[in-house]
Amino acid sequence: MSEIMQRGFPESEFKTRTANAQARMADQGLDGLLLMSEPDVRYFSGFHTLFWQSPTRPWFLFVPSTGKPIALIPEIGAELMRRSWLDDIRTWSAPAPQDDGISLLTELLSPLASSGAKLGVMKGHETALRMPLGDWERLIVNLPGLQIGDATGLVQGLRMVKSAGEIEKLAHICAIGSATFARVPQIVSTGMPLDEAFRQFRREALAQGADDAPYVVGGAQQGGYADVISPPTRRPLQNGDVLMIDTGCTWDGYFCDFDRNWAIGTADDRARRVYDTLWRATEAGIAAARPGATCRDLFQAMSAVIAEMDDSGGDIGRLGHGLGMQLTEQPSHAAFDTTELKENMVLTLEPSLSYGDGMMMVHEENIVVTSEGGRLLTTRAAPELPVI
Amino acid sequence: MSEIMQRGFPESEFKTRTANAQARMADQGLDGLLLMSEPDVRYFSGFHTLFWQSPTRPWFLFVPSTGKPIALIPEIGAELMRRSWLDDIRTWSAPAPQDDGISLLTELLSPLASSGAKLGVMKGHETALRMPLGDWERLIVNLPGLQIGDATGLVQGLRMVKSAGEIEKLAHICAIGSATFARVPQIVSTGMPLDEAFRQFRREALAQGADDAPYVVGGAQQGGYADVISPPTRRPLQNGDVLMIDTGCTWDGYFCDFDRNWAIGTADDRARRVYDTLWRATEAGIAAARPGATCRDLFQAMSAVIAEMDDSGGDIGRLGHGLGMQLTEQPSHAAFDTTELKENMVLTLEPSLSYGDGMMMVHEENIVVTSEGGRLLTTRAAPELPVI
Repeated sequence: MSEIMQRGFPESEFKTRTANAQARMADQGLDGLLLMSEPDVRYFSGFHTLFWQSPTRPWFLFVPSTGKPIALIPEIGAELMRRSWLDDIRTWSAPAPQDDGISLLTELLSPLASSGAKLGVMKGHETALRMPLGDWERLIVNLPGLQIGDATGLVQGLRMVKSAGEIEKLAHICAIGSATFARVPQIVSTGMPLDEAFRQFRREALAQGADDAPYVVGGAQQGGYADVISPPTRRPLQNGDVLMIDTGCTWDGYFCDFDRNWAIGTADDRARRVYDTLWRATEAGIAAARPGATCRDLFQAMSAVIAEMDDSGGDIGRLGHGLGMQLTEQPSHAAFDTTELKENMVLTLEPSLSYGDGMMMVHEENIVVTSEGGRLLTTRAAPELPVI
Repeated sequence: MSEIMQRGFPESEFKTRTANAQARMADQGLDGLLLMSEPDVRYFSGFHTLFWQSPTRPWFLFVPSTGKPIALIPEIGAELMRRSWLDDIRTWSAPAPQDDGISLLTELLSPLASSGAKLGVMKGHETALRMPLGDWERLIVNLPGLQIGDATGLVQGLRMVKSAGEIEKLAHICAIGSATFARVPQIVSTGMPLDEAFRQFRREALAQGADDAPYVVGGAQQGGYADVISPPTRRPLQNGDVLMIDTGCTWDGYFCDFDRNWAIGTADDRARRVYDTLWRATEAGIAAARPGATCRDLFQAMSAVIAEMDDSGGDIGRLGHGLGMQLTEQPSHAAFDTTELKENMVLTLEPSLSYGDGMMMVHEENIVVTSEGGRLLTTRAAPELPVI
């Protein structure tokens, strides 16, 4: 992958995101948003750093009903935040266990509290509170009169639909992921321990241009695999294994998330049939991914094919999800999710199938929703189980 | 690095951790702990997976006043959790926005609520609530009579002091990090863009045996660098630059966290003096890291040397921290932290210094506290600024 892609976004991207949020805030009666997770802060500010891996310091971004967002952050991030499109950046020398931003937040939010205004925070499905719960409780006590609303639907609703700039980045990292998977037959071989195969995969992803490959999971056992979230073992790859590697690689803060399956040496008949079924389930998902359909429709389109071999419904809970600044984002392709698909949503299609004695297989592709159905961002998996 | 190290821990490790927690719970009047962050759940269960990178699903571990911890987790993690030392594993098919574990938690905790017992949760400094705030509020309403206590000091106090098995893993990843840094003069050269230097560093860390190198930050500018948390630019390394790379690499779920500095081509006099001052500040920190001293003592020992060139005190907030399953853990080497050092704490020493027009330099080593002072886990940085 040549590095001709531009990192970051023009200021207009953040203006549009903020204006869209403010329009929805007005509709929903929210007078401000208080955001504190890495992707939410980055979405509205462009603030992009690996430093969030340290859990020590909280970071806050306030989106007012009009005007630019305001950052309340540890001083160590000031230099980087000053390069963003924001004007109002307030800092404290963190860590400060007695007052990690709480005075600054209280000062900022007191006018809202005095007027009985409503502050939106992320408190719904797939969110966490990235500040100490005790500090949150203290903050609320400091702000009598402030109403708290749930901004989860508002923010996730915006983030689900990607801009042209975001789709470019997602297409770029999906291409890097595809190029890395294409090299796997050269990288792995019979006798190689699984953890070594994963290590070589990570190195290859970096060589192909990924900034990082934080998520590399999978499995390999005779005729399938039992589990897709365990760390790799040292067991050497053997003739008759089905190897699966699932990866989340990143470029400029955007993820791909897809997998590939291979047979080692020889593929047995059952594994071929399972593979074929999942390949066709993915085709059904691609065709169904049109604006106006729901995630439930997408789930049912894939489930109908999977049911040829497995009608248990499975326990993984869903057959794909949103994709963007996080490895997994809303929505979920599940019977419970009636989110309507919109043009430019970026999604994973992830049909899976249980068979035999505790075996499973998973396929995954990444698409963008268009009026003609899903457009692949990944190079489509081979229609038949490839043999290494 | 040869892979002779054993992954995981014997069951006795988790028994000891749990027994130690239960003894402290009894002292502090806590009748159970409800844990939900990756390192806290892993500390008591051994459950180790990259799947936590997906924010979709909450995970819960309950530590009762006696007996083994109980896991309440999404079904997708059941296979892996069954390989742990736990017996009682309760699962639900997640994601389930209407009930993501809340019924299971309510059932588990109702007896505690009925008797007016006190549940410890992590709500203090350096923690987050890794479940939706709205679900937490619903859970509390479901459990009238339940008292909530802050278990932050209890759990972090235990985790600060490492076992022999943990120190082995930390020593292993620090050795891998040291071997990677030793290769930097062969990897980087004048004219190489900084982002390419970082990419090559990551690939080398994997080749040296790291499971991953999730944290690679730093900078390079003429005579120093202005910022240590920004992503790398495409600017080529130039004669007269000071290059710093800071890395958190992992092995079996444990981190190293240290940096190295190099001059590119030539080193100017000021950069040499700053380097020498920070090298000596680190020496002072190593000598001061004895059981019975406090983190404040450690901070002051390093600050006294730094003050030779910079008496501003700086805004980064601290001069090092705890290290283990997270890139940064408690305690903090800062004036506010009076935590008493104990044998087998693993710490970073991270003196930094501001100079010139917005320039800074940071040194970092990783040590374990012994009765003779800090024992280095990292290969000590060269006493004079090395030139590439």
